Amino acid sequence: MNKKSSNNRQEIVTAAILIIGDEILSGRTKDSNVNYIACHLTNIGIRLMEVRVIGDDEEAIITSLNELRAQHDYVFTTGGIGPTHDDITAQAVANALRVPLIEDGRALDMMRQHYSDDKLTAARRRMARVPEGAQLIQNSISFAPGFMIKNVITMAGVPAIMQVMLDDITPKLQVGKLMHSTTIVHNQPESTIAAKLEELQCQYTDVSFGSYPFFKDGNVGTQLVLRSTNKSHLNSAKKALNNYLDSI
Amino acid sequence: MNKKSSNNRQEIVTAAILIIGDEILSGRTKDSNVNYIACHLTNIGIRLMEVRVIGDDEEAIITSLNELRAQHDYVFTTGGIGPTHDDITAQAVANALRVPLIEDGRALDMMRQHYSDDKLTAARRRMARVPEGAQLIQNSISFAPGFMIKNVITMAGVPAIMQVMLDDITPKLQVGKLMHSTTIVHNQPESTIAAKLEELQCQYTDVSFGSYPFFKDGNVGTQLVLRSTNKSHLNSAKKALNNYLDSI
Repeated sequence: MNKKSSNNRQEIVTAAILIIGDEILSGRTKDSNVNYIACHLTNIGIRLMEVRVIGDDEEAIITSLNELRAQHDYVFTTGGIGPTHDDITAQAVANALRVPLIEDGRALDMMRQHYSDDKLTAARRRMARVPEGAQLIQNSISFAPGFMIKNVITMAGVPAIMQVMLDDITPKLQVGKLMHSTTIVHNQPESTIAAKLEELQCQYTDVSFGSYPFFKDGNVGTQLVLRSTNKSHLNSAKKALNNYLDSI
Repeated sequence: MNKKSSNNRQEIVTAAILIIGDEILSGRTKDSNVNYIACHLTNIGIRLMEVRVIGDDEEAIITSLNELRAQHDYVFTTGGIGPTHDDITAQAVANALRVPLIEDGRALDMMRQHYSDDKLTAARRRMARVPEGAQLIQNSISFAPGFMIKNVITMAGVPAIMQVMLDDITPKLQVGKLMHSTTIVHNQPESTIAAKLEELQCQYTDVSFGSYPFFKDGNVGTQLVLRSTNKSHLNSAKKALNNYLDSI
């Protein structure tokens, strides 16, 4: 329902995440960037609509990136901007956007502040290559920058570095209305209240009612999560649901 | 490089995962199913090529499912098969595959073994609806089954239930050659060995050389992960890399 096709762009800003890395697909590495970025976007008023994880494969990156950036206001990529042969994200982003990949003087300057010339090897200089016209994203940890070009934000895969890059780019992003949410814990299986939930969902059209089972100490319970950009409707819906739960 | 277009189907079996759930996109819930399924598939000889996370939105499910099942041998979905109004996965899979969604007598029987008639409410019966022609997947935890139809495997989102469903369906899956891997820890930044890695990658074409930086106790190091379906080539590549690392 929250699709870009029906966006009022003042109110709803959407995003996708593209995680790039064979190591996630093989299971060797557990991704933690998706949840971090998801929480961050929710907190600043950007609605995450889709996540994709793909391997270190240029064709796959280009295809996914072009699909996602056509559908959403922003695409955040993580991974593949290091110094080794398997780091192909910068080149793939440049190719997807049909601009040259250039060694960027500003990026080199950032790195020169921390590396002497003999340490600024060919491999490290590789990390100063960005698509022509990109805005650089500061990396206060290991100095090689990320970049934003058009609606694509390209960040490192190492969580700590991704996080400082996300902080650096955040003030430059357009944001929409904040999504408010509230959680009610119901100590019964969700099937016991499914009918009422559906009724409330029909009644409160701009509040989304999510129902998530949990298992704890041998009991089955339900977390009921209500979400809306309209705080007063959210409070009314919560009150109606609590009244019902008190009555059963 | 490991794309289905170049598959010998005896050797390479590919898969995608489709995670369905607003709660993952909002950041409220941390997904753990991707890593679990990724490791499982690697261990049984199925190559995970892509993961997508989308919301509880029928159109998004249908579009993603049809794209992924056309590209890969299997698509594993998780989430959205519970008893509440926001559980729309079974209906979406049926619609994507253009078959009716029916209340399945076998599924009802499975549930009747654990629920008396008065407990088998309309909401719970909803979980006995599967696409016509589907094979059922046993759920030894909460009894409502998952299902497999054509190349789509639909499982619960609750990790413990997903895991028993994955175990139940595994013997029925076609698998390919096992991917072997080995990891070498190098206590220097990856930029120090980037040139040699690229040279070795060119030399050992059926071994993939991945390079992953890590930060520990203030030091920067690199995990070098070599992967191949050919164990003897993998061992030769590992020996060549170790010889180089010993020499520097």
